[in-house]
Amino acid sequence: NHLKIAVIPGDGIGKEVVPEGLRVLEAVAKRHNIDMRFDEFDFASCDYFQKHGQMMPDDWKEQVGGHDALFFGAVGWPETVPDHVSLWGSLIQFRREFDQYISLRPARLMPGVPCPLVGREPGDIDMMIVRENTEGEYSSIGGKMFAGTPREVVLQETVMSRIGVDRVLKYAFELAATRPRAKLTSATKSNGISITMPYWDERVAEMAKDYPGISVDKYHIDILTAHFVLNPDKFDVVVASNLFGDILSDLGPACAGTIGIAPSGNINPEREFPSLFEPVHGSAPDIASQGIANPIGQIWAGAMMLDHLGHAEAASDIMRAIERILSEPAMRTRDLGGQADTQMCGKSVADALD
Amino acid sequence: NHLKIAVIPGDGIGKEVVPEGLRVLEAVAKRHNIDMRFDEFDFASCDYFQKHGQMMPDDWKEQVGGHDALFFGAVGWPETVPDHVSLWGSLIQFRREFDQYISLRPARLMPGVPCPLVGREPGDIDMMIVRENTEGEYSSIGGKMFAGTPREVVLQETVMSRIGVDRVLKYAFELAATRPRAKLTSATKSNGISITMPYWDERVAEMAKDYPGISVDKYHIDILTAHFVLNPDKFDVVVASNLFGDILSDLGPACAGTIGIAPSGNINPEREFPSLFEPVHGSAPDIASQGIANPIGQIWAGAMMLDHLGHAEAASDIMRAIERILSEPAMRTRDLGGQADTQMCGKSVADALD
Ligand SMILES: CC(C)[C@H](C(=O)O)[C@@H](O)C(=O)O
Ligand SMILES: CC(C)[C@H](C(=O)O)[C@@H](O)C(=O)O
Repeated sequence: NHLKIAVIPGDGIGKEVVPEGLRVLEAVAKRHNIDMRFDEFDFASCDYFQKHGQMMPDDWKEQVGGHDALFFGAVGWPETVPDHVSLWGSLIQFRREFDQYISLRPARLMPGVPCPLVGREPGDIDMMIVRENTEGEYSSIGGKMFAGTPREVVLQETVMSRIGVDRVLKYAFELAATRPRAKLTSATKSNGISITMPYWDERVAEMAKDYPGISVDKYHIDILTAHFVLNPDKFDVVVASNLFGDILSDLGPACAGTIGIAPSGNINPEREFPSLFEPVHGSAPDIASQGIANPIGQIWAGAMMLDHLGHAEAASDIMRAIERILSEPAMRTRDLGGQADTQMCGKSVADALD
Repeated sequence: NHLKIAVIPGDGIGKEVVPEGLRVLEAVAKRHNIDMRFDEFDFASCDYFQKHGQMMPDDWKEQVGGHDALFFGAVGWPETVPDHVSLWGSLIQFRREFDQYISLRPARLMPGVPCPLVGREPGDIDMMIVRENTEGEYSSIGGKMFAGTPREVVLQETVMSRIGVDRVLKYAFELAATRPRAKLTSATKSNGISITMPYWDERVAEMAKDYPGISVDKYHIDILTAHFVLNPDKFDVVVASNLFGDILSDLGPACAGTIGIAPSGNINPEREFPSLFEPVHGSAPDIASQGIANPIGQIWAGAMMLDHLGHAEAASDIMRAIERILSEPAMRTRDLGGQADTQMCGKSVADALD
């Protein structure tokens, strides 16, 4: 009765940070007597594409569908495979086919991480961004007409379903209910995107009735990005459509210092399908193969995975170890002004588990 | 042979800051012997809506279409008229019907304005955001099906036309060519929004061939918002679709301290129709009628208007006066830590013209 984790390193620095994530997972599992086994897969990578002409084998669902979770590195190597091919052939497939309809991304200012915002300290920025992860602006419906002529026109549909909107809102309200501030902010743009976004607002207002204990507000996405910079302490749980969530979950971590340490859960809350945990950063071709990538995002993704699998204490242990290591300049990687390489940083987190 | 300006104060603080904008325009016109006459209109306001059941009279085009430009305050009073009614019935009408296909918005760190980003000084942030202003994500095509049932679904089309995309790109390339850094950044999301955004990228690549002197790069909108916070000095001219431009032109000014002083031009470059100049901020119901609104955005919008009408020197005079006043704590409004009210601030800019 052990936990089965599918490990998918992917491309670039994904292959360097995943081993550090595993190192920490193995160490914490030992301490907590969690029987967790790892199967590694080479697909969902551009190397695989070059050999097989597709990002994943036809039976990828059978191969990883029985696992309890996917521990994912990063995918993309634009030099050999265009991004929309590599990403839509892997990451977006997982999200859709495994109905990982929640993307959950913390933005938290951690000790030792230089903050780009004046006067902000650890504790001031601590938000959870809940992003719809399967529909909305990321549709594949649309096309081009009158190609190559002056009247060429390209259309793409945004699709919001009641089921799709309500389930992400419900998750966000429930999450807000578990947090001390119990506050939910909805990202909208109903003053400009005049059909789908007013619908989003309607559903938020409707669901808010069921959660009288949650304080709810909404901002249009334009001014919301401004508030992230000017008043990041205002936000607790932020819920957003696929595109708006994508934007906010890069901006939030940037306001907290760096996207280099931010994790991301692609979650099927019912656990009908495996969820996928990954760092927010990509494959970073510019620093790949140098052993200098920061593994904290991958390690933090491991903590989120444990939490999802019901091992909240083991997850907190990892978070405490991460905070300890980030507080020590010598243990940090270069992107955070430290000296450590990827492995040293990973090892020191594993050693800092108590 | 005078310049005819249609003045539309609109709602809320629009009615307080427009007179200060006019004060400065009149003062600078006198010094430069510019014969500029102003006609004020009460429509495009929620007061007008309450009296007439519509935001503008049926013949609004005839009434203001013959003017050289529109000097606009702010519209919106959600207590009495929902935003999508007031905005789509006025501002969006002007943009569409007068084919103001460029929205031009500077984000510049000015002396005396507290910057939320660590270690940034005036000069470090100086970008021009060029936003497509008539199509893209702001379409009115779409609708709802299966209303009120669990299979309820809402669709909205994004529409990009070759003509619409190429003309905003051309404007942005030409603008970049006039600037010392000659750099153009394109905002995209072709890795996620898989039909319209790859088309946008294609047109950028195509047009770049005609401008070998411009250095061009592109970022996906998610990481671009992160770079605005982490590396705002990287950006010179930024070109974006309607929605992405909307977001970046609030975020950029926020990174430069406040959206309270940012101006916006809604421009028909061919001058076939009047262009519209307005502050980026809205009608601000929370501080309306108190006389404390910051008039600098409106005054700066006046400078953009003069520039558009061929009076570049008068425009620079206003900009120098604005910089002088912002450098003096006593002359600033409260939102910038000063003591001045709206009128004092406006008067001091007029007096600072040299
Ligand atoms: C009010 C709203 C419709 C408008 C927009 O989104 O264009 C505003 O945010 C702006 O940027 O002028
Ligand atoms: C790579 C891209 C398709 C993806 C997204 O937009 O969802 C990424 O930005 C992310 O946030 O995971």
